[in-house]
Amino acid sequence: MKNIALLGSTGSIGQSTLSVVEKYPDRFRIVALAAGINIDFLEKQMRQFRPTVVATASERSAALLKKRCADLKVRILSGVEGMIQVAAAAEANITVSAIVGTAGLVPTMAAIRSGKDIALANKEVLVTAGELVMAECRTKGVNILPVDSEHSAIFQCLQAGRNKDVKKLILTASGGPFRNYPKRDLAKVSLAQALNHPNWSMGKKITIDSATLMNKGLEVIEARWLFDMVPEKVKVLVHPQSIIHSMVEYQDGAVIAQLGMPDMKGPIAYALSYPERLSDVSPPLNLATLGTLTFEEPDIERFPCLAYAYKSLIAGGTMPAVLSAANEIAVKYFLEEKIEYHDIARIIEMTMDSHTPSPLKTVEEALKADHWARQKAEKVVVATMK
Amino acid sequence: MKNIALLGSTGSIGQSTLSVVEKYPDRFRIVALAAGINIDFLEKQMRQFRPTVVATASERSAALLKKRCADLKVRILSGVEGMIQVAAAAEANITVSAIVGTAGLVPTMAAIRSGKDIALANKEVLVTAGELVMAECRTKGVNILPVDSEHSAIFQCLQAGRNKDVKKLILTASGGPFRNYPKRDLAKVSLAQALNHPNWSMGKKITIDSATLMNKGLEVIEARWLFDMVPEKVKVLVHPQSIIHSMVEYQDGAVIAQLGMPDMKGPIAYALSYPERLSDVSPPLNLATLGTLTFEEPDIERFPCLAYAYKSLIAGGTMPAVLSAANEIAVKYFLEEKIEYHDIARIIEMTMDSHTPSPLKTVEEALKADHWARQKAEKVVVATMK
Repeated sequence: MKNIALLGSTGSIGQSTLSVVEKYPDRFRIVALAAGINIDFLEKQMRQFRPTVVATASERSAALLKKRCADLKVRILSGVEGMIQVAAAAEANITVSAIVGTAGLVPTMAAIRSGKDIALANKEVLVTAGELVMAECRTKGVNILPVDSEHSAIFQCLQAGRNKDVKKLILTASGGPFRNYPKRDLAKVSLAQALNHPNWSMGKKITIDSATLMNKGLEVIEARWLFDMVPEKVKVLVHPQSIIHSMVEYQDGAVIAQLGMPDMKGPIAYALSYPERLSDVSPPLNLATLGTLTFEEPDIERFPCLAYAYKSLIAGGTMPAVLSAANEIAVKYFLEEKIEYHDIARIIEMTMDSHTPSPLKTVEEALKADHWARQKAEKVVVATMK
Repeated sequence: MKNIALLGSTGSIGQSTLSVVEKYPDRFRIVALAAGINIDFLEKQMRQFRPTVVATASERSAALLKKRCADLKVRILSGVEGMIQVAAAAEANITVSAIVGTAGLVPTMAAIRSGKDIALANKEVLVTAGELVMAECRTKGVNILPVDSEHSAIFQCLQAGRNKDVKKLILTASGGPFRNYPKRDLAKVSLAQALNHPNWSMGKKITIDSATLMNKGLEVIEARWLFDMVPEKVKVLVHPQSIIHSMVEYQDGAVIAQLGMPDMKGPIAYALSYPERLSDVSPPLNLATLGTLTFEEPDIERFPCLAYAYKSLIAGGTMPAVLSAANEIAVKYFLEEKIEYHDIARIIEMTMDSHTPSPLKTVEEALKADHWARQKAEKVVVATMK
C-alpha cells in the first residue's frame, strides 16, 4: 500500500490521479489533499477518499469546508502553510505535485525536505528552480518521478541504457492546433482556436502553452534538470499524432521510444507504481489501425516561444523563472481575451530582454525573480493593450 | 578487453562483426574463427585478426589453409569437432554464433556448456532446439545476447520494465518485396525479385525468408524461447520502413520501441558491449527527414509461412525443427531456380503435415527431426518438380 499526498486534487491531473487511486484501491491510499478554492469538488473528494489532512488556498474556503465536513475526521488547513503540511504529511510515501504554476514550488520543496518521493506534474517547480530542487533531491535521496507524458516516456527510455551513453533526449511535440498555419495567419487566431488541442484534453493554461509551443519549451527546461542533461542534448521533434511520447537517442545510434495512446492516467499510474507497471491503465495502442506516424522539425520562426526557452536556459540563473512567469501572465490575459495570440511571445521576449539574470542560490531568489517578472509582464501587457 | 570466438566469419554477420572489432580495437580481440570453405577470405581475416585457433568446414580446406598459413602461430582444425573447439576456445569470453542453418547448433551448445556468453545470429539454434538451449543457458549462467535487429530491439526494450509486466512482444516486419502483391501475382514472382529486399542487405537465404515472411516466423519462434514468452504473446506487425526494429507492450498500455537506421553493426556492437553502448556504431536516425512511418497487419493468407511458424510452435516438440529444415530445403531449391516461389510454402506445409511431433529431450533428437524433415522435403521437392 502506497500512501499518497496530492497537491492540486481538483485540477485535471489531480482528478486523473484520483481515478487511478480509485481503480487500484489495494495499492494506493489518499492521506492528504490540497486544492484551490473549488470546495464543492474538494468536499466530494474528501468524502470519497477520506484523507486525514486537507488544505485549501484561502482561510475563508477552509473555514467553510470545516463547517461542511464537521462529520469527517480530518484536519483542514489553508494557505501556503496548509499546502506545506499536506505536501509533507507524515503518513505519505509519495507526494503528487499537481498545483499549476509557481505556487507549487514551496510545497514541493517541503515534501522533498521531508523525504517524500515526488510524482511531479507541476512544470514550474523545475523550470523556476530546477537546479535547487534537484540538488535537494540528491541530498535527501528522494526520487522525482515525472508525471507528464513526455518526461515519463524519457524516464522509461533511459532504463534501456546508461545515462552516460545518452546522445540526446528527443521530446515530441504535437505541434498544437496551429502547426500548419502560415505566419501571417497566426496573428488572427482566436482563443477558441488556441484551446482546441488536436490530441490531448488538458487544463486551459497548458493547452495555450501547447499552441505556442511554450509548453515544449518548459519541458525542455524540465528535462534539462530532471535528467541532468546539458541544453544541447535536449531536442524537440514535432510528431502530430502524439503516439510516440518521447525518445532517447544513445551514442551507438539506437533510439528508444515510449509509445501509447494519449492518456494521462498512464504516466500517473507509472509514477505511483514504479518500477512495477499496473495492468490495463491506458487503452491499448494499435499501430496497424493508426496506420501512419509522421515527424517534422519544429519551426522556431513561427513558434518563437520554443526559442525563448532555450535562450533562458543558456542565460541561466533566474532567467527561466522569468520566462515562465512572464508566460503565465501573458497566457492569463490571453485567456481573458485582453491580448492577441501573437502578443504572448512578445510579452515574454520583452520581459526577458529587460531582465539581467543572477545565479540561483535559494528558492526565495527564484520566487523574487518570478515576482519581478510578473510585475514587469503586467506592465508590458498594459503597454500592449494600448 | 573482450575476447571473441566467431563462428561463421566469412558470412554477412561474420564480416560485420569483424568490422565492429576493427573499429574498436581497444575493446575487442578475435581469438578464434570458424568459416565454411571460403579459405581465401578466411586467410585474409586470419592475417588481419590473428586468432589462435581456426576451423574450416572440411579437412581438405583445413589442410590447404595450413600450408598457406605456415608462417602464422595458429591451430587449424576442421569439421564439427573443429567448430566446437573454436566455439569453446579457452581464451574467449563470448562466442558469436553466425553460422547459417542447423550446422550452428552443436558448436553453439558447446560454447554454452563451456560457459561462454553467446551473441546469437543463427536463427536455427533456437528454432530447432530453443527449449534445450535456454535450459542449458540457465544451468550454466550464460547470457544469450541476440544479434538480429528485432531481438536486439526487444532485448533493449525489455530493460524498461519487468518481464512479468510484459503483455506482448511486437516483432516488426518490413513485409518484404511482395508486401503489396496481390495473391495471384505471387505465383509469377522471380528469384531476382525475391532477392531484392527493400531495406536490408543480407545473405541470400534470409532475404528469401524475408520475402515469404518465414524469416519473421522463425523470429517468432526464437523470441518465444529467448524471452520465455508463450506464443500468444509474440506478435508481428508489418512496418515497411524497418525503422522501428521491434517493440514491447507492457500491461499498463505503454509500448517501448527501439528505432534506428537499418544496419547490422548496431545489434552486433550492442551484443558485444552490453550493457555499455559504444559511440557512433550506426548512422544517426533522423525522423524528421524520414517523415513517415507506417504500420499494417501481416496478411497470413498471402504469406502462409508466418502461420506455419505459429502452427509449429503450438504443435511443439520437434515440429519447429521440421518447419525450419523443410524451409531450408525449399529455399535451397528456389535459389537454384528449380522450384517456384509459391512452392516454398507448399513444401513446408506438406512436410509438416507428414510429421508427428515428439517431445524434445536432447539435441540429437532435434537434429534427427531436422534430418528427417530434409529428406522428406527433398521428396516433396522432387514431386513438385514433376
